Amino acid sequence: MATGKINVSVENIFPLIKKFLYSDHEIFLRELISNATDATLKLKHLTDIGETDVKYGNPVIEVKIDKEGKKLHVIDQGIGMTKEEVEKYINEVAFSGAEEFLEKYKDSAKDSGIIGHFGLGFYSAFMVANKVEIITKSYQDDQAAHWVCEGTTDFTIEDADKKERGTEIILHINEEDEEFLEENRIQELLVKYNKFMPIPIKFGTKEETLPLPEDAPEDAEAETKTVDNIINNPEPAWTKQPTDLEDKDYKSFYRELYPMQFEEPLFHIHLNVDYPFNLTGILYFPKMTQDMNIQKDKIQLYQNQVFVTDNVEGIVPEFLTMLRGVIDSPDIPLNVSRSYLQADGAVKKISSYITRKVADKLKSLFNNNREDFEQKWNDIKIVIEYGMLSEDKFYEKAQKFALYPTVDNEYYTFDELQEKLKDNQTDKDGNLVVLYASNQDEQHSYIDAAKAKGYKVLLLDSPIISHLLQKMEGEKEKISFVRVDSDQVDNLIKKDEEKISKLSEEEKEKLKGDFEKVIPKEKYTVQMEAMDSDAAPLLITQPEFMRRMKEMQQTGGGGMFGMGNMPEMYNLVVNTNHPLISEILNTKTEKKQERLIKHSLDLARLSQNLLKGEELTNFVKRSFDMVK
Amino acid sequence: MATGKINVSVENIFPLIKKFLYSDHEIFLRELISNATDATLKLKHLTDIGETDVKYGNPVIEVKIDKEGKKLHVIDQGIGMTKEEVEKYINEVAFSGAEEFLEKYKDSAKDSGIIGHFGLGFYSAFMVANKVEIITKSYQDDQAAHWVCEGTTDFTIEDADKKERGTEIILHINEEDEEFLEENRIQELLVKYNKFMPIPIKFGTKEETLPLPEDAPEDAEAETKTVDNIINNPEPAWTKQPTDLEDKDYKSFYRELYPMQFEEPLFHIHLNVDYPFNLTGILYFPKMTQDMNIQKDKIQLYQNQVFVTDNVEGIVPEFLTMLRGVIDSPDIPLNVSRSYLQADGAVKKISSYITRKVADKLKSLFNNNREDFEQKWNDIKIVIEYGMLSEDKFYEKAQKFALYPTVDNEYYTFDELQEKLKDNQTDKDGNLVVLYASNQDEQHSYIDAAKAKGYKVLLLDSPIISHLLQKMEGEKEKISFVRVDSDQVDNLIKKDEEKISKLSEEEKEKLKGDFEKVIPKEKYTVQMEAMDSDAAPLLITQPEFMRRMKEMQQTGGGGMFGMGNMPEMYNLVVNTNHPLISEILNTKTEKKQERLIKHSLDLARLSQNLLKGEELTNFVKRSFDMVK
Repeated sequence: MATGKINVSVENIFPLIKKFLYSDHEIFLRELISNATDATLKLKHLTDIGETDVKYGNPVIEVKIDKEGKKLHVIDQGIGMTKEEVEKYINEVAFSGAEEFLEKYKDSAKDSGIIGHFGLGFYSAFMVANKVEIITKSYQDDQAAHWVCEGTTDFTIEDADKKERGTEIILHINEEDEEFLEENRIQELLVKYNKFMPIPIKFGTKEETLPLPEDAPEDAEAETKTVDNIINNPEPAWTKQPTDLEDKDYKSFYRELYPMQFEEPLFHIHLNVDYPFNLTGILYFPKMTQDMNIQKDKIQLYQNQVFVTDNVEGIVPEFLTMLRGVIDSPDIPLNVSRSYLQADGAVKKISSYITRKVADKLKSLFNNNREDFEQKWNDIKIVIEYGMLSEDKFYEKAQKFALYPTVDNEYYTFDELQEKLKDNQTDKDGNLVVLYASNQDEQHSYIDAAKAKGYKVLLLDSPIISHLLQKMEGEKEKISFVRVDSDQVDNLIKKDEEKISKLSEEEKEKLKGDFEKVIPKEKYTVQMEAMDSDAAPLLITQPEFMRRMKEMQQTGGGGMFGMGNMPEMYNLVVNTNHPLISEILNTKTEKKQERLIKHSLDLARLSQNLLKGEELTNFVKRSFDMVK
Repeated sequence: MATGKINVSVENIFPLIKKFLYSDHEIFLRELISNATDATLKLKHLTDIGETDVKYGNPVIEVKIDKEGKKLHVIDQGIGMTKEEVEKYINEVAFSGAEEFLEKYKDSAKDSGIIGHFGLGFYSAFMVANKVEIITKSYQDDQAAHWVCEGTTDFTIEDADKKERGTEIILHINEEDEEFLEENRIQELLVKYNKFMPIPIKFGTKEETLPLPEDAPEDAEAETKTVDNIINNPEPAWTKQPTDLEDKDYKSFYRELYPMQFEEPLFHIHLNVDYPFNLTGILYFPKMTQDMNIQKDKIQLYQNQVFVTDNVEGIVPEFLTMLRGVIDSPDIPLNVSRSYLQADGAVKKISSYITRKVADKLKSLFNNNREDFEQKWNDIKIVIEYGMLSEDKFYEKAQKFALYPTVDNEYYTFDELQEKLKDNQTDKDGNLVVLYASNQDEQHSYIDAAKAKGYKVLLLDSPIISHLLQKMEGEKEKISFVRVDSDQVDNLIKKDEEKISKLSEEEKEKLKGDFEKVIPKEKYTVQMEAMDSDAAPLLITQPEFMRRMKEMQQTGGGGMFGMGNMPEMYNLVVNTNHPLISEILNTKTEKKQERLIKHSLDLARLSQNLLKGEELTNFVKRSFDMVK
């Protein structure tokens, strides 16, 4: 038996790293600035713990374009490298200086925010440059070094005469990557990836208008001065303690994150945890629009203040992806698939921590200022209802703050609602019947009829509501939800009272036959009901069960198989106590009776939004003629 | 100056390759089967060109689970490796045998379908296995070799007593990856990635029912026999020549691709090109449903019959991502970002090739069987209209086959339409006015009025249609599109004829005042028009320009800024020649006049779907009372 060592073929893997290390070429700049930040933070750490006498000062990282020379410079004032360190860190691919540094200063360096991980980042420079130079001077050494590599595995190194401490990286940009010599493009990248990094980043200069002295004459012109153009905010709100921030700070940070967003957020949630994982961040509840999909991909994910992605699928629970804001955590694995993320223990904990924090915040908002919470309900309900439907833990917690608004703008929790309804809306079998409407306009006449009985009618209009009602009915005892147009009002909540019909059984039989002669049987089931004489003479209802199953099928599954494609079926309720119905019964000429039934049916259909097209046109014509 | 060689630190890069080579762990199986396929195809190539005397036979690749031993085996009957080759290919990470083989047999091997690329695939085994064994016997050598590696860079190699030619890979599956010891999971992966690979893949056995002999007695039981369970179809339709396939072959391949899809595709497009890039494939036009987003991600991308992804964004033009089918091309770069893909020259060419082929196919379908094409129009129009809007080249080509259906199911090309309309629908300034409706039901009375004038009314109901009409008006000369309800019918196409009003100017003035007293000014502009006496007495219109701008804003931008939020504004057209209007004018009591105007307005609003909620309920009540 022989043993041996696996060897990595440098010549083969180098182009691989260059090409496929990152799917996006633009990442190189983020990586180089992360390295420059690390080099600066390392120096800060050493001065903080008294390991060196050098003055830390106010270091910046500078990015410079040399358009003529086709070069891009990234210059830091950090720890620098000796020639030996260049050999060690740069020439050994995948030998990360950051890890060694963290190992060495384990205890003290933990919170220094050093980013570097695999030591591969520097090589991403070769994705856009055919030649890369490093000029660097260590804080410990007078002699600077100059390293040059033209994209092969060969390099040269020699002394340099750099005077200042720190490292300068010079990229000779490829012809096909000249976009990275454009000022706008670099500005865009710096804003995208480095907007909140902890060391100031300078990119060119800008003019700043000086304030006029107070005694300046009215026609005095303001003076301007040229100042460094600093790209980033090194201390973004989420890195601070909630106690150090006021409401206006959160709002102004929101504008920093979404400069194109004119509406203010409804409220925020500050996340801050360091065990069993590290996570900070601020989430905002924005005003929601109807289209749920448009809302997504607004939460930004950072690691140690470096922008990573705006796709937080798998990290933030689905129902919260409609929120906005920032999450910063070094504990989220990158470049892995969604299924991997969802199985990862740390990520699971993060996801349920976020869910819990959101629920707690909602509860405290509800408790502290209920009126305000009620006013915001319509803007936040879609998130809460979706959360109740998809996360059982959130469903439980939401019992304390989820609201059920009526068509008259009263807002109840479910417990309050039960208390309010129990006397008038418990049916003869002891079930509490909760009436609701999905559209105040379309179901107006039905809402009116229910309100006339003293019933409360909820307005539940979210697209997913039928799923949530189904879940609630399954989970609660003796509760059922019934839409106001699912039956005539006396049948919505069945009680032990019998209505007396003005018509005899024979008359009802005859009338039913008369209606069935005129009305299409495959669409309407004629149903004789003894209702109040001032209720509608004729109305159309659609049973709750069928309608809800159809709705559930149409909004993403559930319900019963095949229900989504069932034809619409309605009941035609004939109010046997209404004078018009007696008139129809007693009409002698068949033709006149048919006309009366048809016109009445048209009116009933109008109330249920079922009269359309040619039939509506004919109805309108007929009605104009009747006016004349 | 010193020079040197960059070194890759094996110890550091090995875990990196293991962890981050692929974002999905499951990929390992695809990689190992690709290697096994390569090894088999190499042998086939050598026997084909007479380089070796060994018999190629009917080799299969076998996948076996050893659940107790926690091992997964992948066994091929391919070219095998000598001990020296193992040392060379396996122990040198990123040293690909496939590339060397292709280099050596450049001319003859071009079409052999060999997959291997970077030689990294094998190492993906370590994503799921803590120990990997290779037992292999070369076609050229009697001595087999046995290589073992436990996930570090150390390995052992010794002689083995394997008798059959080929390679067996044994994975000792990690505890956390035991899903890959489940039969269902492996079956699922084989179907997902290897369903169309060119060498038969055996995974266990299955029972097959034998056909009964013809003279069998009626109660004879069919015998079963145990046969190899072959996962894949090694010769999928897209690898064949279009001339060798019939319509039924394309349909049955569609069912192979989408077994859960019950509806047949409308038609297919066979792609086949080998210069300047290599691409084969079959695209299908499915029946479209309303929701455009649901349609996406149905096209599968393959490379040499290996499944890669079902996300073809950036490769296939956006408007064609609603299609289904397969694209197979080794020329599409993988693991790169969308922006990179879109900038890539080869990908651009592929994308425009696909667009051209689709346009050509549509044109030939139109030419060969117009009636059939017309019947399919409603199912395919969304793709074509979206393509016309987003790709100028497609817009040009579509002039030959894009159809404009009327509300009466006549279908015209734009040229035919122009010819058909020019006599009756050219206005006094020489503009051809194309009338359209977006909803046959909702705009029924307006369509009726236009048809009564002998006008053709198109039915254009796609959600993006307003954008397309805007583009067409900009591009064509003296054409305008006008929706039927944007004005009263005599004004839709302005001609040089003056209608005579029965009312004098004074009467009109008075009447206008009467209406404006009753009708909310902020919603309706009252407009006196001398129309036919049997046209509607009152109707509501909404000017084309405003409405279209609003629609464009609501469906994804364009239009004018802020228009989307403008309040709805309507014109109330009063037909001064209608008897009811004269009656209103001459009504003496103010109260009665007001009642007449309000009821008439309600009827006009009904025709335009504007009467809702409480107003509708009151209208219905009033109407029931009028019947009585």
